[in-house]
Amino acid sequence: MIVKEIKQPGKYSYVFSRYAEPIVHIEPGETVAIYTKDAFENRVSKETDLPSKILEGDPNPQTGPIYIDGAEPGDTLAAHIINIEPTRGYAVSAHKPGLGGLTPTRSTPMLAEPMPEKVYIYKIEGDMITYNDRMSYPWRPFIGTIATAPRLEALSALTPFDNGGNMDTPETKPGNIVYLPVNIPGAYFYTGDCHAGQGDGELCGFALEIPAKVTIKFDLIKGKSINWPRIESPSEFMAIGSARPMEDAARIAYAELIEWMVEYGWDKYDAHQVLSQIGKLSVGNMVDTYYSLVAKIEKKYVKF
Amino acid sequence: MIVKEIKQPGKYSYVFSRYAEPIVHIEPGETVAIYTKDAFENRVSKETDLPSKILEGDPNPQTGPIYIDGAEPGDTLAAHIINIEPTRGYAVSAHKPGLGGLTPTRSTPMLAEPMPEKVYIYKIEGDMITYNDRMSYPWRPFIGTIATAPRLEALSALTPFDNGGNMDTPETKPGNIVYLPVNIPGAYFYTGDCHAGQGDGELCGFALEIPAKVTIKFDLIKGKSINWPRIESPSEFMAIGSARPMEDAARIAYAELIEWMVEYGWDKYDAHQVLSQIGKLSVGNMVDTYYSLVAKIEKKYVKF
Amino acid sequence: MIVKEIKQPGKYSYVFSRYAEPIVHIEPGETVAIYTKDAFENRVSKETDLPSKILEGDPNPQTGPIYIDGAEPGDTLAAHIINIEPTRGYAVSAHKPGLGGLTPTRSTPMLAEPMPEKVYIYKIEGDMITYNDRMSYPWRPFIGTIATAPRLEALSALTPFDNGGNMDTPETKPGNIVYLPVNIPGAYFYTGDCHAGQGDGELCGFALEIPAKVTIKFDLIKGKSINWPRIESPSEFMAIGSARPMEDAARIAYAELIEWMVEYGWDKYDAHQVLSQIGKLSVGNMVDTYYSLVAKIEKKYVKF
Amino acid sequence: MIVKEIKQPGKYSYVFSRYAEPIVHIEPGETVAIYTKDAFENRVSKETDLPSKILEGDPNPQTGPIYIDGAEPGDTLAAHIINIEPTRGYAVSAHKPGLGGLTPTRSTPMLAEPMPEKVYIYKIEGDMITYNDRMSYPWRPFIGTIATAPRLEALSALTPFDNGGNMDTPETKPGNIVYLPVNIPGAYFYTGDCHAGQGDGELCGFALEIPAKVTIKFDLIKGKSINWPRIESPSEFMAIGSARPMEDAARIAYAELIEWMVEYGWDKYDAHQVLSQIGKLSVGNMVDTYYSLVAKIEKKYVKF
Repeated sequence: MIVKEIKQPGKYSYVFSRYAEPIVHIEPGETVAIYTKDAFENRVSKETDLPSKILEGDPNPQTGPIYIDGAEPGDTLAAHIINIEPTRGYAVSAHKPGLGGLTPTRSTPMLAEPMPEKVYIYKIEGDMITYNDRMSYPWRPFIGTIATAPRLEALSALTPFDNGGNMDTPETKPGNIVYLPVNIPGAYFYTGDCHAGQGDGELCGFALEIPAKVTIKFDLIKGKSINWPRIESPSEFMAIGSARPMEDAARIAYAELIEWMVEYGWDKYDAHQVLSQIGKLSVGNMVDTYYSLVAKIEKKYVKF
Repeated sequence: MIVKEIKQPGKYSYVFSRYAEPIVHIEPGETVAIYTKDAFENRVSKETDLPSKILEGDPNPQTGPIYIDGAEPGDTLAAHIINIEPTRGYAVSAHKPGLGGLTPTRSTPMLAEPMPEKVYIYKIEGDMITYNDRMSYPWRPFIGTIATAPRLEALSALTPFDNGGNMDTPETKPGNIVYLPVNIPGAYFYTGDCHAGQGDGELCGFALEIPAKVTIKFDLIKGKSINWPRIESPSEFMAIGSARPMEDAARIAYAELIEWMVEYGWDKYDAHQVLSQIGKLSVGNMVDTYYSLVAKIEKKYVKF
Repeated sequence: MIVKEIKQPGKYSYVFSRYAEPIVHIEPGETVAIYTKDAFENRVSKETDLPSKILEGDPNPQTGPIYIDGAEPGDTLAAHIINIEPTRGYAVSAHKPGLGGLTPTRSTPMLAEPMPEKVYIYKIEGDMITYNDRMSYPWRPFIGTIATAPRLEALSALTPFDNGGNMDTPETKPGNIVYLPVNIPGAYFYTGDCHAGQGDGELCGFALEIPAKVTIKFDLIKGKSINWPRIESPSEFMAIGSARPMEDAARIAYAELIEWMVEYGWDKYDAHQVLSQIGKLSVGNMVDTYYSLVAKIEKKYVKF
Repeated sequence: MIVKEIKQPGKYSYVFSRYAEPIVHIEPGETVAIYTKDAFENRVSKETDLPSKILEGDPNPQTGPIYIDGAEPGDTLAAHIINIEPTRGYAVSAHKPGLGGLTPTRSTPMLAEPMPEKVYIYKIEGDMITYNDRMSYPWRPFIGTIATAPRLEALSALTPFDNGGNMDTPETKPGNIVYLPVNIPGAYFYTGDCHAGQGDGELCGFALEIPAKVTIKFDLIKGKSINWPRIESPSEFMAIGSARPMEDAARIAYAELIEWMVEYGWDKYDAHQVLSQIGKLSVGNMVDTYYSLVAKIEKKYVKF
């Protein structure tokens, strides 16, 4: 199969926006390979490339918007993530003043001094991502940022919200289907910020950041709307809530998952009981403008 | 003095956006009278006009963008609020499912049933706003929503953030100067959502909503940037933080006020000590997408 | 009138606890003068007395428990604050690592370095509290910590909760009546932590700390229970919520105030509407184990 | 091996308290079998036993305090959980007004109506816990509440905090070691609230509640103190933070885990980087007075 390749023709996008010009049109059912830059705009390649010095303008460049032919408000876009390939031999992380879960930030300001800035360059070697003997982790790639455009707003590419966005959830990975609401004609799909792996919460604010070639097959579910992003793996149904404080992200995720179970015929209170006993909840990020949590249930408990 | 009158020429705006066309250009130093609709788009005039039924599209229409000639990123826009006049004889409030501080919302979803919907029509009679004998309050007008455009984003008119916006702070009132950051050339000023009065927190999500004629004098402070909106009254300096959870809004407001004191020559730790002993903190809203808190200090403690 | 004087006979208390021995019994209707230490245990008297060095054991010593004869669970204790007199000529504040709204704490830990420790000694001169020419504030005394014992728990004297406690609300001041729930026979009243004044939020974690002689008249309201502390001033009804995050403290305070209005015959939804338009909300502390917010309404809107 | 059996001799405890009399003394190194009641005090056995009607007094009865001979403040108690056996043939869950993550509570009050009360009785059949064909889950037993006494406070058995307590974390299960700080001589160990299984977050506020016989081996680590509870499984190190809002629980858990890694020779910033890439974070409860989150890292990344 020859897959259409999509590269950003000019400037990358730093917002999810209906106000931009689509870079390409694709058909539902089509599989494409999308090239993405890393969250540092590929500008950090050695330990002296401090993000606070080297980054001009905005972080987290996005490839898009991609126009999905026939998509209309009220539909749902299904993005089957087929594959993620790094397009260079190393991943980058960093500790940067003003970013992270254990340091003062713009939204949680303090008079305390931030932790020291530091860049970590990891080699990608086979199935391992390696900084040194002790800091070496398995290859667990996923897409950090995947979105449709909001209905009216143009939201920063740093923000996760009901249109998807910078959720930094390891569940947006090859093999899974990400469902996103279609808010405007053409959906305006964006993606970027691939990760070679990440811990729960993305504590320092940077995962193992890589540029990548992302292969996605798009489908369109006509006349079916969702309130918040959903994910389907071979064995699980999942819903993602993005909010602050973190408990609100958990509430949203579980409420949307109850909604999904209701669509399968469940009584909402029984669904609530089932999730109380067998639901899973994982933390995507605890560092972005909203925190993203993923509520999950095995399909075998839902279908009947 | 003949004051230029500004009315929205076509559709009102429901975002604060650099992507819109300015409706008018004005010069720094100019005083203008801006006509605004109420948060219900002036559609609610009797108790049977339930917001959940009658509102099509978006709430909180804004007049703008107004282009401020000469405004450049890094400047600060000073909006002296001169006067607020209601343009009809009644104010409207309501209890609406999904909105308010004591009811489940989209960002704090629950399986609980919401409180009943109800519309309150208040007469404006002289200096009193009156629903019945017991529910009658003084005329305390202010602007609920006052913003410049963000640098990259187009934010919902329901959102308060670092560009001002839907802060719902009673301190944005006649006699006071509101300072807003200029993020793009021309600043793109927006305003709307006037209130005949409001309790702290705007508990139910609607104040005493009125359409109004708002008189504002604009000045431009070149080469001076601020991080978050500031307000100056004849006797106080104030800074507004908008965030969730609420303590982060308080942190932002106090941190920005410390910054302001440092600009006046204060040591930042001594400023922190002074605010600990004599600072004021008030709650604008506890219902919007971010909560807005105002930190204040009397000028006499700052200037020396 | 000769007022009974109460001094702690032995060790001060660092918890609000039913498990302690009452230090004295008093009758409802009685007025007493209670001697309290400051939050530093009166150990800090000069700038080199750093709290992190000089404090052994616990902060915030309490005088009590005081047994209120005839008090039974389900009653309400009314403490009329008559007067607060400092028992020495200076007040103390400090910046201490691990305490404050703009610094990492035990409950909001960070890898950032805390701000420098510093002690501020203020002279009490007439009606002014003075550190230097610029840092001089009016005398605005109030009780920082005022509590009954919880039903089962023994709570730290640093904690504000539904039994009152370390609320640090400037409204617990002379002229006002503080209503506290009676949870156990005798109520077990505690007080301490007087302040010569404080900014909203008590930003650095220490107000203008003073030892004091506090004159209080106690009354007992039999068979009347409240959920959270309430305050009555000559002109206002108030309720105090203590919780984290801060919006929950606001919710509690407003919900309890609605309850109070319902006791006066209000429909709860109309009370909610009135508070939306004319309620006040102030921040006692944003630094203690729970944040304390005070919701208020003028009595003239309630009684009818 | 004959194991000493411990049954509560009189009234169960509803607080973690130094003010109680120990029910038994045990030696470090000893293995004991502790009998516990379920969170409903074993009072709910059929669907008409509504908790709001049938529960008198307090929920969550604890067995204890158990005095650990030789334990002194500054030591750490290691509780190896060996086994959990249900002492009856069914588990109970319920939806109860005022409890849960998707319903108004005492700390997040609303004017909304709560969801309907309902009792779920599950049969324990072999390795499955079964309500009906669709609501049947595997046997995944753990201890919901496990604590030492706080240093000064007597905390409700419903509260999780730095002394352990009602953490409702599925990781406190057979095969794992729970480390708890010793705050007072004898440690005063308490346990109760066993669960036959639970979803992440314990959404409705009740897991699959069972009375049980819990076999634990106690060890004492002299002269070694910890700030927050820790857990060791055969393959992982874990730390538990309990706080509100939820992000603070995550911060505490990760900060304590960094501390643990530093004890193994890690630089704290490198530990922070490792957890950013390979750390795990799971949600114990999102319903108790504090939320409990567990940060985890595989031992193979720590030891070297």
